[in-house]
Amino acid sequence: MAKKKKECPHCGKEFSEYKNPIPTVDIIIEIENQGIVLIKRKNYPHGWALPGGFVDYGESIEQAAAREAREETSLKLENLKQFRVYSDPRRDPRQHTISVVFIARARGTPHPDDDAEDLGIFTSKSLPRPIVFDHEKILYDYFTYRNS
Amino acid sequence: MAKKKKECPHCGKEFSEYKNPIPTVDIIIEIENQGIVLIKRKNYPHGWALPGGFVDYGESIEQAAAREAREETSLKLENLKQFRVYSDPRRDPRQHTISVVFIARARGTPHPDDDAEDLGIFTSKSLPRPIVFDHEKILYDYFTYRNS
Repeated sequence: MAKKKKECPHCGKEFSEYKNPIPTVDIIIEIENQGIVLIKRKNYPHGWALPGGFVDYGESIEQAAAREAREETSLKLENLKQFRVYSDPRRDPRQHTISVVFIARARGTPHPDDDAEDLGIFTSKSLPRPIVFDHEKILYDYFTYRNS
Repeated sequence: MAKKKKECPHCGKEFSEYKNPIPTVDIIIEIENQGIVLIKRKNYPHGWALPGGFVDYGESIEQAAAREAREETSLKLENLKQFRVYSDPRRDPRQHTISVVFIARARGTPHPDDDAEDLGIFTSKSLPRPIVFDHEKILYDYFTYRNS
């Protein structure tokens, strides 16, 4: 396993420890007859993305998906289902993350919150630009799956 | 996000940092007309388990699955496909892991290596005991999926 260097905040000396990819979740939220929800990110990398975020220690991926959707869009998810996992080490410019992507439904009007500066509901023909991370690929896979 | 306490190996003082679940892979390897491969673990928790292990930083989950299968069973995987993700915080008694489970095929005779003390090929009717982690549940889901 790969090791990473850490620096002690007290004595300043370096030591190494195991380094693991970071687990995340992303959620494709379908609003009936309208499309799917994307958020405009407040933080780097700037652009549009699926709602999502880091999985907390002690939390299942389903709990993380429900929490992140609520925090970023104010929506309550229904019919949450695993779609696919994306793990290319280059998918996030900050660090190696592994994202479990879910598909879910929601009713009501989403409101941006937390890491979301803005949000919108889009179809495959109306996607905004730029879309960050590998979320354009995820959306391509999703629309291909929905049309098959 | 949850934080964990670390102790500096040089000065012995504690500091806290973000704690994340650890990503792993497990592989259901199908040997044609025979069954699926389970390994008998050398290390705690002792018992039978699917071949698998930790995902290295900088490695995709598909690469990790191929590497772990090779290291533990000497088999080369074909037709590797994502099955499902298991993330219950209690699934591993040592720490919170999130496992992406794959289904794959292999030809030839598996040989135990690395963390495997022994291995065997089993069907739903001939499973060994005890099966550790949540792998009995994973196998139940797999056989249900195969029979549906």
